[in-house]
Amino acid sequence: MREAMAQAEVGDDVYGEDPTINALQAEAARLTGHEAGLFMPSGSMTNQVAIALHTRRGEEVICAEGAHIYEWELGMMAAFSGVVPRFVPAPRGVPDPEEVRLAVRRSIHQSPTGMISLENTHNKAGGTVIPLEVIRGVRAVANEEGLPLHLDGARVFNAAAALGVELREITGCFDTVSVCLSKGLGAPVGSVLTGSREAMAQAHRYRKMLGGGMRQAGVLAAAGLVALREGPDRLAEDHRRTRELAGALLEAGFDLDLEAVQTNIIYARVEDAAQRVQAWAERGVLASALSHDRVRFVLHHQVSDGALAAAARVLTS
Amino acid sequence: MREAMAQAEVGDDVYGEDPTINALQAEAARLTGHEAGLFMPSGSMTNQVAIALHTRRGEEVICAEGAHIYEWELGMMAAFSGVVPRFVPAPRGVPDPEEVRLAVRRSIHQSPTGMISLENTHNKAGGTVIPLEVIRGVRAVANEEGLPLHLDGARVFNAAAALGVELREITGCFDTVSVCLSKGLGAPVGSVLTGSREAMAQAHRYRKMLGGGMRQAGVLAAAGLVALREGPDRLAEDHRRTRELAGALLEAGFDLDLEAVQTNIIYARVEDAAQRVQAWAERGVLASALSHDRVRFVLHHQVSDGALAAAARVLTS
Amino acid sequence: MREAMAQAEVGDDVYGEDPTINALQAEAARLTGHEAGLFMPSGSMTNQVAIALHTRRGEEVICAEGAHIYEWELGMMAAFSGVVPRFVPAPRGVPDPEEVRLAVRRSIHQSPTGMISLENTHNKAGGTVIPLEVIRGVRAVANEEGLPLHLDGARVFNAAAALGVELREITGCFDTVSVCLSKGLGAPVGSVLTGSREAMAQAHRYRKMLGGGMRQAGVLAAAGLVALREGPDRLAEDHRRTRELAGALLEAGFDLDLEAVQTNIIYARVEDAAQRVQAWAERGVLASALSHDRVRFVLHHQVSDGALAAAARVLTS
Amino acid sequence: MREAMAQAEVGDDVYGEDPTINALQAEAARLTGHEAGLFMPSGSMTNQVAIALHTRRGEEVICAEGAHIYEWELGMMAAFSGVVPRFVPAPRGVPDPEEVRLAVRRSIHQSPTGMISLENTHNKAGGTVIPLEVIRGVRAVANEEGLPLHLDGARVFNAAAALGVELREITGCFDTVSVCLSKGLGAPVGSVLTGSREAMAQAHRYRKMLGGGMRQAGVLAAAGLVALREGPDRLAEDHRRTRELAGALLEAGFDLDLEAVQTNIIYARVEDAAQRVQAWAERGVLASALSHDRVRFVLHHQVSDGALAAAARVLTS
Repeated sequence: MREAMAQAEVGDDVYGEDPTINALQAEAARLTGHEAGLFMPSGSMTNQVAIALHTRRGEEVICAEGAHIYEWELGMMAAFSGVVPRFVPAPRGVPDPEEVRLAVRRSIHQSPTGMISLENTHNKAGGTVIPLEVIRGVRAVANEEGLPLHLDGARVFNAAAALGVELREITGCFDTVSVCLSKGLGAPVGSVLTGSREAMAQAHRYRKMLGGGMRQAGVLAAAGLVALREGPDRLAEDHRRTRELAGALLEAGFDLDLEAVQTNIIYARVEDAAQRVQAWAERGVLASALSHDRVRFVLHHQVSDGALAAAARVLTS
Repeated sequence: MREAMAQAEVGDDVYGEDPTINALQAEAARLTGHEAGLFMPSGSMTNQVAIALHTRRGEEVICAEGAHIYEWELGMMAAFSGVVPRFVPAPRGVPDPEEVRLAVRRSIHQSPTGMISLENTHNKAGGTVIPLEVIRGVRAVANEEGLPLHLDGARVFNAAAALGVELREITGCFDTVSVCLSKGLGAPVGSVLTGSREAMAQAHRYRKMLGGGMRQAGVLAAAGLVALREGPDRLAEDHRRTRELAGALLEAGFDLDLEAVQTNIIYARVEDAAQRVQAWAERGVLASALSHDRVRFVLHHQVSDGALAAAARVLTS
Repeated sequence: MREAMAQAEVGDDVYGEDPTINALQAEAARLTGHEAGLFMPSGSMTNQVAIALHTRRGEEVICAEGAHIYEWELGMMAAFSGVVPRFVPAPRGVPDPEEVRLAVRRSIHQSPTGMISLENTHNKAGGTVIPLEVIRGVRAVANEEGLPLHLDGARVFNAAAALGVELREITGCFDTVSVCLSKGLGAPVGSVLTGSREAMAQAHRYRKMLGGGMRQAGVLAAAGLVALREGPDRLAEDHRRTRELAGALLEAGFDLDLEAVQTNIIYARVEDAAQRVQAWAERGVLASALSHDRVRFVLHHQVSDGALAAAARVLTS
Repeated sequence: MREAMAQAEVGDDVYGEDPTINALQAEAARLTGHEAGLFMPSGSMTNQVAIALHTRRGEEVICAEGAHIYEWELGMMAAFSGVVPRFVPAPRGVPDPEEVRLAVRRSIHQSPTGMISLENTHNKAGGTVIPLEVIRGVRAVANEEGLPLHLDGARVFNAAAALGVELREITGCFDTVSVCLSKGLGAPVGSVLTGSREAMAQAHRYRKMLGGGMRQAGVLAAAGLVALREGPDRLAEDHRRTRELAGALLEAGFDLDLEAVQTNIIYARVEDAAQRVQAWAERGVLASALSHDRVRFVLHHQVSDGALAAAARVLTS
């Protein structure tokens, strides 16, 4: 990947003249089944541009409780787009399409619904997968209500791998999709928003407003192209190893919800989370302490079977 | 009250020269135990000005589920102040101070908490009252966390009447308070925001931004003064009548939560709410259909014992 | 007018049930030649609702230098609608339609134009009148560019009186118009926004967001109706008296631009403006000091010929 | 530079763990004489984060006419920070400190001033340089008025080279400074905001809100470090060549303001700008057509004396 970055042909993307970025955007559009794509420095930016595209000030964004666009994007839906979240319950990250329908607001005394957003896989719920029939159910609601539907697809390649379907079977149900090139796919930086050509033309302006118009970002895009081409095939292996690790942790007495371990993420409850995480780090195993009693493990392709076995020994000893 | 309006001495309030408005603001400040007050055309405006005062863009506002500032103020916290809600559970409208504490965010990866807002009585929960010890518990959390605390007191005179305390025992716990002159108190229009002199000087600017600077609004303030002076004493009677009506409705088979009937509001579940409400209206009894199976009754001082008995007959026949 | 206010039939305007407000809105729509009107507490609010109606975040509002929507509405175009002004030169308050055309932005590297706004009469330029041919020229630009056109008509009745035309000859050129009931027309409070039925339905939501939904505001609307019916006819007299006063002031050595004295406003340069204004006030003549060397006189119908002569004596002695 | 990028040691900058980014930020802080720096993907982002840091909604940003933060940042000051520009005249990009003082607003009827922003060199005025005494004059105004002062220093290394002073003599006068690593310095992507440690901690949150938190952006930072270390020394040469080219163009009859040619930018008026630019491009010389009759030439270190001579021949033939 570094090799690809060092060799990347670049141009000024502010003028749409960076060939590597153009290739990356076209590849992302092809994979998602959309007309066009737009490269940005982060998944938060692709999500927030999508929210700006689909809403007007004062509207509501229907999303699952714990959605990344609310929990980890620092109120930006309000600060930039002037919109508030409207939550639907989502056990293990999966909302019921009927709950989505009930959350749509149309009274003139209330804030109207501007869009619906799903997250697949759902990070906070543990990398859980929204099944195709649920996605199609929400799409049907969106159609009936005349609402745009966005996918926070930071981990959508994991969802496709877990469901055993082509990416576009999932992404084709949405008006816009955020795809992250870092995280599971392994690029150092960047995300792509995909959608219709017209939506991407508008998105271009919002990206510039957010300061995401980068001049010669082709070096990043070069890594992104490698990630898109080589990353997805490795995910099934990550998932297999994650399940193995989860099984080992459960056996060793960890308090975790095995049914929520569906892709490459494991959440577990432990006492003194911060201390445990530090102790593991000193022995070479990285985890995150999300609260005083909750830790998260994320697997990626640089964790081999051997490394996994070693990590499991550290964690369970 | 019309008499007072017709006689009101007025001036240009944009320059602080309307004596009737100045008197109203002073009276509201005296009653709430604050330094100063500012008259505005609605309770939505006093709440939104308070949110603007206490927050910076991208922060979170801790409030109870179903809070008026979120449910009925049309995303204005986002559109104007650029902030999002952070909900705490609130059975019968009463949040647990410990839940408030857990909702405070300080990680640099998250949106920081900007303020805490309570609503007393809580409209959506049925006009329920937050007890003094809960208010003081939340005030303690606010102090420990260094956060401002606002009260949506659209119905705070009802809360004081129900708790049998002076208004300022409640309102003195808050940095800012919205008091509505319409609703239970009976004025045609208007609300007052109270707080420190410095906060009200800032609020003046936000009121002007929102278009709430009215020139010769003394005619409205005259009615407001009458409402502040005469309205509160009548509320205990409203509450007694409301309990009587609720008892009669329950006896007649209505599905309602009697423990939530604490002030002048009754919520009940009925089938075909809209049709029932219309049928009652034709027989002279006004109620609101809030959903397909939920109706709300609100009592005010113009409903006498005789009128109440007549209404009960209509509703239970 | 107080009489009308004391007698006003009222209802809850939040539900569109206040008959006096409905009558006022219909009358304003009839006069402006639009389909519908919406009553609000101030002209700042009607202007800001119009800006919200016509723009999306990040766009530009073309307006004349010194426009009220920028100079006196406290950055609300930015805080609420997320838009910036794009100024065109406007000698004596009158922009050249060709300058308006040049100010339209369409490059993807720039903020696109969202709307054009005119102000007639133009307050900061001295109550100056934009001639019909200029208005029509700007309308033609708006049509060619596909842009909405708003009129800040706080003083548009003065413009119509000065031009000697029916109000709708002016207002019919615009998509939305703000009309103030206070100022020259003499009501204590309030403004009406007029436009298409669809635009007013949207405006209803924005008014509620801004906290401008007032419950029983019929008492204000009653005064507004009187103002709309009786106010306009008196304006020509105000203008005649204003010219007379300006002539007297000029003769007495005041530094003023007589060509800018077109309606009921006179600006003059004087030394020690604040002190002079105070001295005049002590002798019963009210003026405003707008800077250290600039004062403004505004005439209204309660200034009779006799009062004017007395005022002129005070000012020129 | 590609070499440095390929070798860069990286980490997750979202957690402050990317050593190359940390080194870049420290170097930028050292050069500007500030406590800390924060890397972002673009100069638009560093500017907009600075505006968010220094203002509250509804305030005014004093800046020169034609400032990049207004002309080329797409209304973001309004959409994100809710603030409007307040322009001061700036012949050849240089404002008079007394005009800045007059632009400060403090009346409660007006939008208060939130900050002052300068741009050095000033892009739209032709890369013109603000002299040190003017900067110090504006700093004095900022101090007296208690206002923060920001520098859009996209080209501040050019200003330092043109003035023959150390960078920090300029940047030390400001509370925050945006420095671009691309443009004259030659890195492919990125800018650094510098200021106090406390300001940068706040800036971190705003960067994340804008989606500028990039995971392993060390590859970009590696190029940025090379740019910071090697770029500035070459600028004097760029300026010499620019003056030479401007002289040749003037001699050949181009309509240009030689006094505005102070760094590496030349603006000239030509007929049929777009066609001329295309014709030059076909002969290997790149320029930008900014309007129908205005072109811009920008020199950088990859233009050698030989290349310059060749370009001059193309342009003047």
